[in-house]
Amino acid sequence: MKKFEEKTVHSTEIFKGKVVTLTVDDVILPNGKEAKREIVHHPGAVAIIPITRDGKIVFVEQYRKALERSIVEIPAGKLEPGEDPAVCARRELEEETGYGAGELTYLLSFATSPGFANEIIHLYVAKDLYKIEEKRTLDEDEFVSIIEATIEEAEEMIENRQIYDAKTAYGVLWAKMNKM
Amino acid sequence: MKKFEEKTVHSTEIFKGKVVTLTVDDVILPNGKEAKREIVHHPGAVAIIPITRDGKIVFVEQYRKALERSIVEIPAGKLEPGEDPAVCARRELEEETGYGAGELTYLLSFATSPGFANEIIHLYVAKDLYKIEEKRTLDEDEFVSIIEATIEEAEEMIENRQIYDAKTAYGVLWAKMNKM
Repeated sequence: MKKFEEKTVHSTEIFKGKVVTLTVDDVILPNGKEAKREIVHHPGAVAIIPITRDGKIVFVEQYRKALERSIVEIPAGKLEPGEDPAVCARRELEEETGYGAGELTYLLSFATSPGFANEIIHLYVAKDLYKIEEKRTLDEDEFVSIIEATIEEAEEMIENRQIYDAKTAYGVLWAKMNKM
Repeated sequence: MKKFEEKTVHSTEIFKGKVVTLTVDDVILPNGKEAKREIVHHPGAVAIIPITRDGKIVFVEQYRKALERSIVEIPAGKLEPGEDPAVCARRELEEETGYGAGELTYLLSFATSPGFANEIIHLYVAKDLYKIEEKRTLDEDEFVSIIEATIEEAEEMIENRQIYDAKTAYGVLWAKMNKM
């Protein structure tokens, strides 16, 4: 999949942070001209659609500084370097919701913002949920609350923009389609 | 929606580019502690699910430098400052596919990467498509080719990762659910 490839001539690292690294790359376009590409590098993430035994979806509400508001999302989290996404998915599910998954199924992976970022989200469905007795602790800068909602309630949350991100919108549509 | 609000104490602009601006913000967490947030600022975008009269979806294939490969996506593009998303949607559809839309319907908006970016995509469905006689020109650094595919073909492209981004995965699922 190298159609219309843009070859890198030079890459300048502008910023290396805790979450993202920013580079500006000089590239040669398919027509031979030069252009600059601003690229945000991200370690990748997992997201989980957790379905309870009574057919509800488990969401987390958290403040998203980038949006300057709190939104309702399916549980998700960044991959540690070299981490198996399925291991990460179980960890994030437990940390954020207090649920373990009897059954964890991989659905698909997608880039979230291919125009400027390399972030990939690996999406899982978690079923046969059980409460973890000793709940794992969240990261020290993480504050979340849990919402369990039916598909209809989730669709209302999309309508009124409490749910407002791509992975969660996808998750709700997927759950509806698969009659969870 | 200010639950768990993180108040900004100071914001440092690290980079201001053509597409993104990067800031690092010092914030006060709900527990009173300080933390840093790396935020990518983006002007926002539109994406369009174009459905032909014979029920196919119109995709564009393009090279995505961030992913170092070409992927197949629904048409999309960045908003100009102050631009009405519906106007932008018609422009991008015409530029990228050569189709005009007899009917353009707003579906929903979502943040693509709320953990580190403020990009919002406004998603539309375009129907009653007609060929534009004088096709608009693409941006000078844009190279795309057009693929018209049935839902089944699109699902295969998700399976083999030719389709590999969130807005397009959502678009295909939406089209399937609505039996396009």
